[in-house]
Amino acid sequence: MADKKQLIQLDDDLSSDDDDDIKIRKLKVLEGTEDPSSSHRQPIGETGNSQRTEDVLPLTLDTDFESEAPPTNGTIGYDAGNISANGNANRNASSEPIFHVRSRTAASLAGVLQQEQTQYESLDYDVCENKLFQDEQLSRLRDRFSLRTHFIRWIIFILIGIITAVIACTIDIIIEELSELKYNFLKSSVDDNVTVNESGGDLALPYLWWLLLSAVPVSIGAGMVTYIEPITAGSGIPQVKSYLNGVKIPRIVRIKTLAVKSIGVITSVVGGLAGGKEGPMIHAGAVVAAGISQGKSTTFVKDFHIFKAFRDDHEKRDFVLGGAAAGVSAAFGAPIGGMLFSLEEAASFWNQNLIWRTLIASIISSFTLNIVLSAYHGVGDLTFTGLFNLGKFDHPLTFEYFELPLFMLLGVMGGLMGAAWNFLNTQINKFRKRFVPWRAGKVCEAVLVAILGVTLACIMIYYINDCRPLGNDPTIHPVQLFCEDNEYNAVAALWFQTPEATVRALFHDPPGSHKILTLAVFTIIYYFLSCFTFGLNVSLGVFIPTALVGAAWGRLVAMLLFYLFPETEFLHPGKYALIGAAANLGGVLRMTISLSVILMETTGVETSFFFPLIIALISAKWVGDYFNDGIYDTIIEVNHVPMLPWEPLPQYMGLTAQAILSKPVVCIKLRDRAHYIYEVLHKCNHNGFPVVDDVEGDRRSEGRVCGIILRSQLIVILLKSLYVENQRFWQQETTIQTFRDVYPRYPSIKSVSPLDRKYNYTVDLSMFMNPSPVRVNTYDSVPRIFNIFRALGLRHLLVINNENRIEGIITRRDFIYK
Amino acid sequence: MADKKQLIQLDDDLSSDDDDDIKIRKLKVLEGTEDPSSSHRQPIGETGNSQRTEDVLPLTLDTDFESEAPPTNGTIGYDAGNISANGNANRNASSEPIFHVRSRTAASLAGVLQQEQTQYESLDYDVCENKLFQDEQLSRLRDRFSLRTHFIRWIIFILIGIITAVIACTIDIIIEELSELKYNFLKSSVDDNVTVNESGGDLALPYLWWLLLSAVPVSIGAGMVTYIEPITAGSGIPQVKSYLNGVKIPRIVRIKTLAVKSIGVITSVVGGLAGGKEGPMIHAGAVVAAGISQGKSTTFVKDFHIFKAFRDDHEKRDFVLGGAAAGVSAAFGAPIGGMLFSLEEAASFWNQNLIWRTLIASIISSFTLNIVLSAYHGVGDLTFTGLFNLGKFDHPLTFEYFELPLFMLLGVMGGLMGAAWNFLNTQINKFRKRFVPWRAGKVCEAVLVAILGVTLACIMIYYINDCRPLGNDPTIHPVQLFCEDNEYNAVAALWFQTPEATVRALFHDPPGSHKILTLAVFTIIYYFLSCFTFGLNVSLGVFIPTALVGAAWGRLVAMLLFYLFPETEFLHPGKYALIGAAANLGGVLRMTISLSVILMETTGVETSFFFPLIIALISAKWVGDYFNDGIYDTIIEVNHVPMLPWEPLPQYMGLTAQAILSKPVVCIKLRDRAHYIYEVLHKCNHNGFPVVDDVEGDRRSEGRVCGIILRSQLIVILLKSLYVENQRFWQQETTIQTFRDVYPRYPSIKSVSPLDRKYNYTVDLSMFMNPSPVRVNTYDSVPRIFNIFRALGLRHLLVINNENRIEGIITRRDFIYK
Repeated sequence: MADKKQLIQLDDDLSSDDDDDIKIRKLKVLEGTEDPSSSHRQPIGETGNSQRTEDVLPLTLDTDFESEAPPTNGTIGYDAGNISANGNANRNASSEPIFHVRSRTAASLAGVLQQEQTQYESLDYDVCENKLFQDEQLSRLRDRFSLRTHFIRWIIFILIGIITAVIACTIDIIIEELSELKYNFLKSSVDDNVTVNESGGDLALPYLWWLLLSAVPVSIGAGMVTYIEPITAGSGIPQVKSYLNGVKIPRIVRIKTLAVKSIGVITSVVGGLAGGKEGPMIHAGAVVAAGISQGKSTTFVKDFHIFKAFRDDHEKRDFVLGGAAAGVSAAFGAPIGGMLFSLEEAASFWNQNLIWRTLIASIISSFTLNIVLSAYHGVGDLTFTGLFNLGKFDHPLTFEYFELPLFMLLGVMGGLMGAAWNFLNTQINKFRKRFVPWRAGKVCEAVLVAILGVTLACIMIYYINDCRPLGNDPTIHPVQLFCEDNEYNAVAALWFQTPEATVRALFHDPPGSHKILTLAVFTIIYYFLSCFTFGLNVSLGVFIPTALVGAAWGRLVAMLLFYLFPETEFLHPGKYALIGAAANLGGVLRMTISLSVILMETTGVETSFFFPLIIALISAKWVGDYFNDGIYDTIIEVNHVPMLPWEPLPQYMGLTAQAILSKPVVCIKLRDRAHYIYEVLHKCNHNGFPVVDDVEGDRRSEGRVCGIILRSQLIVILLKSLYVENQRFWQQETTIQTFRDVYPRYPSIKSVSPLDRKYNYTVDLSMFMNPSPVRVNTYDSVPRIFNIFRALGLRHLLVINNENRIEGIITRRDFIYK
Repeated sequence: MADKKQLIQLDDDLSSDDDDDIKIRKLKVLEGTEDPSSSHRQPIGETGNSQRTEDVLPLTLDTDFESEAPPTNGTIGYDAGNISANGNANRNASSEPIFHVRSRTAASLAGVLQQEQTQYESLDYDVCENKLFQDEQLSRLRDRFSLRTHFIRWIIFILIGIITAVIACTIDIIIEELSELKYNFLKSSVDDNVTVNESGGDLALPYLWWLLLSAVPVSIGAGMVTYIEPITAGSGIPQVKSYLNGVKIPRIVRIKTLAVKSIGVITSVVGGLAGGKEGPMIHAGAVVAAGISQGKSTTFVKDFHIFKAFRDDHEKRDFVLGGAAAGVSAAFGAPIGGMLFSLEEAASFWNQNLIWRTLIASIISSFTLNIVLSAYHGVGDLTFTGLFNLGKFDHPLTFEYFELPLFMLLGVMGGLMGAAWNFLNTQINKFRKRFVPWRAGKVCEAVLVAILGVTLACIMIYYINDCRPLGNDPTIHPVQLFCEDNEYNAVAALWFQTPEATVRALFHDPPGSHKILTLAVFTIIYYFLSCFTFGLNVSLGVFIPTALVGAAWGRLVAMLLFYLFPETEFLHPGKYALIGAAANLGGVLRMTISLSVILMETTGVETSFFFPLIIALISAKWVGDYFNDGIYDTIIEVNHVPMLPWEPLPQYMGLTAQAILSKPVVCIKLRDRAHYIYEVLHKCNHNGFPVVDDVEGDRRSEGRVCGIILRSQLIVILLKSLYVENQRFWQQETTIQTFRDVYPRYPSIKSVSPLDRKYNYTVDLSMFMNPSPVRVNTYDSVPRIFNIFRALGLRHLLVINNENRIEGIITRRDFIYK
């Protein structure tokens, strides 16, 4: 029987291991001669119902490649049978190796099929503290490198703040200038055509111009996004959020992405789509952070040979956190809001130093923005009020006690409207995904929505007659249209500017700037227009259109109330616009804390008005949460991103690790043969392999856990031929940097040439593996291991039994089957 | 030999355990008969230098109490010898039990003696997920209790906000009114006496009045603090900080503490000591939170039978976090600052829901404050500007680029002055501790410092002639003294009010309100006065005096610069006072983020001025950190509170768990005898005991870890007689609530009556112990286990070897030997 042969052969194998003791080997031989298939090494606590699959099919290895040195050391057992592992206690303990995909206990428990195989991988936030790493740590201790590293880290965070702000400013200024040109031209075109044909006028020409000036930029933007870098579609916040949660989103932080996103957002906003530039700016901050911190660009194949110590997922993710904060800060001029955004939405692993650095990045960012915009607008003493992106409220906003229930009602309304918006948007996007799969279609769709927007605007302007006296300068492009000479058209004023400027107008225009009908129609149109827009293949954020819709109906509520109770004094329409915007944002986005602070910072309201804002936001969030998730979370879920929630899902309460672990686990021995590793990497796509010792024969999955090794590390080992047999050639110059150099795009196993001569070489993992993987026991409760998993930012969690033998493995996905 | 006898006796013992398997027992018997002292079960990786102490002295148990049923089951082995465990690899594996205090490897490594035995214990932040807990979880799942619990939790956080604010308001108003009375009286007394004796005047009478009006309140406050509740001395922030870090500070969150602290702070501030009310308010918030959330008062022996589900350290600590935030919010009117304070200073374990609740508590608190103070001051529409505690800057503060280096210089100066202040204060307090140990002396000292303050103030007022024209109403008590009829004495104006009002004055007084000499002398006097004051046995915070000193020298700098360069325009003295206050606060307290936000919120400056504030604060912090710790951390260290830092201490780099673990570990068997547990609890004061099974004889410390049990749980088990033998009597009604009911003041083991008849009863811990303690391996690196320990808020961390046998235990103290 192969079993026995392997057992004896193993003893030689093991004798070269350092850390086995006499007792165990004695026991093994003893039992091996007596009864090799007796139920020894069975985990305690699993007494009753354990059965063992004894029908092992040992096959001779069918090698696909030419081997100069064929295996002389006996045949290698393969388990080609399709062993099901659906019972919890039914341990598959046959001879190794098993190259199947792990059966996910949690999935079968939840009754879901394993559809959509992992297109997303996790980040390795957990630092691999192998010997190489510790050597580096020790050498750092000696040469005060540590202090230097800290210092450089600070410098990078400051750089992130500056560059993010500069990019944001550039986008800002270009959008402002181009919009100015566009709407000035349109205004003069309207003026020309109306004055020429006194009555009614031939408005076809301005309409056509408007169409052209919308369709062309939008088609450029949509084309770039669709054909060059599809990941840049949308706001980018869901992607950044997923990344910071620990999910590797391909191509999310590349320079190409940044370039396409920047141009995409400029063209889309200038094209007049119902979207904002804030989300993309946050994404831009994240890309800048990832780019700078790595000191190299894989897009341009350029390595600056700086910041090499920061080339791992842990450091990079911390930097990206700072970048996102800097992005928020630059987009809204809200440094504290930026930090809180990172805190609320993004960070799962968190410490004081990280708060600090994040705050610095966002303050530097807002300061840089201040400098650049002050210089650009020619304001001397750094008090450019445009830093308040949504306009500063000059007089402190006050409120009465009896308004609080009203604010709460507005919040409820915002929650309902937001939930409906999210539902509608999700349906539209599902429809889109199904019926518009081709790329040209996506571009056409974006152009069509742009045309639809222009057309609706034109119809509204044409049919609603809302003329207001000129004078207190409420708009930069007052269009006269059919109004009297001292009047301007209030409808056109709403449409003839960027959405952001419209929000500002709704917040700050004096009472009586619009008719009720105007605002009502505008709200309805913009509500659906923004719903159609978000999800198009263009780079656009959802913050501004949502705030705009909210501001519109908030103002509308104030106007209606004033119409009903004309003697009231508290009905400042701008205040209600602000509350409406908060409520609508709460209903759609559901990020309460950072939103409230961002709104406060970006409009400069007093601390005392924080309370009404929070009331509206929380009501909106709670009502909305009753129906569905926030729009970002919905997008994340629709895309099947394995995002870890803040708390374990309720259905996991009362379960133990046993119920959710994945098994069988493909393990690798502490000293294993090169060709076995080569095979494993070829045949299964797992990213982490427990390293075991004390293995009988090839029964690796019964081994005792002594570490964990990542796929990427194994590939590097094979690529660089770091074998025991040629140790003298590489041992001196191999450091942790050898592994960092290939970060972040590890070569595939296919790039490793067949082993040939090295077929039987040995790999000693003791130097490379992480010797202290986090382990839990099979009977540990799921909420507990979830906390450990999340708090430590893990990728793999090994489940062991009482004897430290591997029982299964838990990864991110095992926590989120619904 | 006793060893062998025990081994055989053990086999019977073990047969009653559920979870041992055939193999191991077989092995045991085999080895037991062959060579009982061979080096089996020796941990792998510890091959070279292990020696075993074989000279065991088995003694017959000398029982102190009458036993009706004497031990029949053979003698119990005692190791009375004084076994040293100073070598790392020298394992003590003789027969159990060992009741010695664990030898702390980390302590011997650091070369410190184990002085000052633990007067502080840790909190049990880690939830004990035993069977009882899981039963409760499951029952909650069924009856939607979970939702109710969530809801109640929110209610409690809101209540915390309201009550904290009401207490803060009360303190506020009383201080204001009493100070008003006092200084009005003094002013009229001065006026009377000066006008009577035209030249020079007989100022002895006002001076005596002032002395009296200072000494009496101060002596009351100091007396209460000293004789009733000494823990209330100082600001309370270090204590709250330690508590939130996971250290149990006795009596810190009791109602008596709250009462003494409130009266203490009122009397001290009214008495005119150099201190503020802010720190005590934060402490008050923490007490309120702890009190409300528990639904009972141990001081008044009153149980309201509500909120029973929240009676454990985990929940309580979360509530206290909210209370601290509410306290900051109420003290400064800074809700975001409150949340950030919790974040920066306090929380180590953190998730989104906690941020949320903390924010709600602090917003509710600031809103309540607004309502109460608006009503009190008769302001209608909730815009009481006194919410800006340090006064709102009416005009936006602007700055020029070239001022930034100046701000940085101010920061450096603040750092230097702060570090010096901290050093001086620490020295004074050391001196105090040594030479003023008696309680009456402490009260006298406080009165003396009050008298000193008054005397210095009088001398200053008397000798410095600084008269300013009346008119723009800079002070509420303008004292004429020797000035002309239309003038007031600027020196007296500085002293004739509470320190907080003086800070406000320095921020907002128009340029030219003081002479340079006045401010210079004032700065020097107040610097030393505050340094003498902080550390007295009175309830006073350090924030306001620090801000005051900073504001004084900040303003002084602006005046000096203006004197040197009279043509400059940017030198707004209030701005420099603010920057100076920030710099001085940064230098003394070193809490940068929350301080900057608090200063922003409490003075209402614009977001754009955030950058200068941060520049000054960070420079101050960095310079100060070069010399010593912040004042709160210094106090914590002086008191030997085992506070966990954010990062592992640098000297622990490169070490493994082996190097810092404490051993030998006193273990308890899964099914152990009642009297053994009784003995253990009497003889050693550890708070957590690993539960082991698979034990040979009484060699418990070689057992296999299967859980951990707390001292408090064991005491409850003994008190309630939860033995296997009488299981049918208690099994039905014993729930997790049985254990919660005695929280937080667990009875001492002395309250357990001698076991008598139950001497040989058995305790089965499988139901009570935490079955999933966090375990690490001996070779795991210290930075890694530190992260685990801190992120999960642990109290005990078990160190096991590769075979899951206990090797040692790591607690908070093991990480912080210096």
